[in-house]
Amino acid sequence: MRLTTFTDYCLRALIFVALKGDEAATIDEIAEHHKINRNHLVKVVFRLGQLGYLNTSRGKGGGIRLAHDPAKLNLGKLIRQTEGEFALVECFQERDCLCVIEPACVLKSALRAALAAFFEVLDRYTLADLVKPSRNLARLLAVPG
Amino acid sequence: MRLTTFTDYCLRALIFVALKGDEAATIDEIAEHHKINRNHLVKVVFRLGQLGYLNTSRGKGGGIRLAHDPAKLNLGKLIRQTEGEFALVECFQERDCLCVIEPACVLKSALRAALAAFFEVLDRYTLADLVKPSRNLARLLAVPG
Repeated sequence: MRLTTFTDYCLRALIFVALKGDEAATIDEIAEHHKINRNHLVKVVFRLGQLGYLNTSRGKGGGIRLAHDPAKLNLGKLIRQTEGEFALVECFQERDCLCVIEPACVLKSALRAALAAFFEVLDRYTLADLVKPSRNLARLLAVPG
Repeated sequence: MRLTTFTDYCLRALIFVALKGDEAATIDEIAEHHKINRNHLVKVVFRLGQLGYLNTSRGKGGGIRLAHDPAKLNLGKLIRQTEGEFALVECFQERDCLCVIEPACVLKSALRAALAAFFEVLDRYTLADLVKPSRNLARLLAVPG
């Protein structure tokens, strides 16, 4: 079980941009510091812009900034959005399920309950929590802390 | 985020064998009823044997049976075993982590807490719970309920 690389990169990009504060970040900078492929990162930043988490602007003084206070960016909500369908097992995708026992399956409800508990924990965190030890983090990313 | 196909098939195989009760199941039968590739299923049954969940015997009267009472087969424990490493994100694998912020990252502990909550729920279920509505299940799998 793992989160998609896309979610992983979304989280890393947001952490980097949050640490920069008012100063704009650039794709090259995030790619370099996080050792992430630049093309992947372009998609990540575009999607985070669509979802309303990042503002991007071109030109002098432009770059990438958080659209809102990091204390308002909920981790559970974000991961639900970046993961898309949470198909823990085939039958979570209502359509096209080939599992013959699906109509009577208790496993499905057990997994649903487990997933709800997973998100209940993540819902308690915001982006602000993730960048709290910001001096250490800033040093590791070589951004002004 | 999804469980591996391997875990999914392990669960389906165990449900089928549990429903058969004292009567032995065969790989062909499980493959046919669950519409699972036979070769995948051979690996699944072998691993479940190694883990002590299934007994298999050859010859007349042979086949696949549960090694223990289904009420003693814990779902959380099983899934931890069949999933192997729970590398939700790259940094969960202690070795070879390339993430530069790993030493100061709060995200990692948030994800670990969420995963613990996920398993706390699954730890409350046994295989016996999964086959409780056994008349419906048995009908769907066309085994004697």
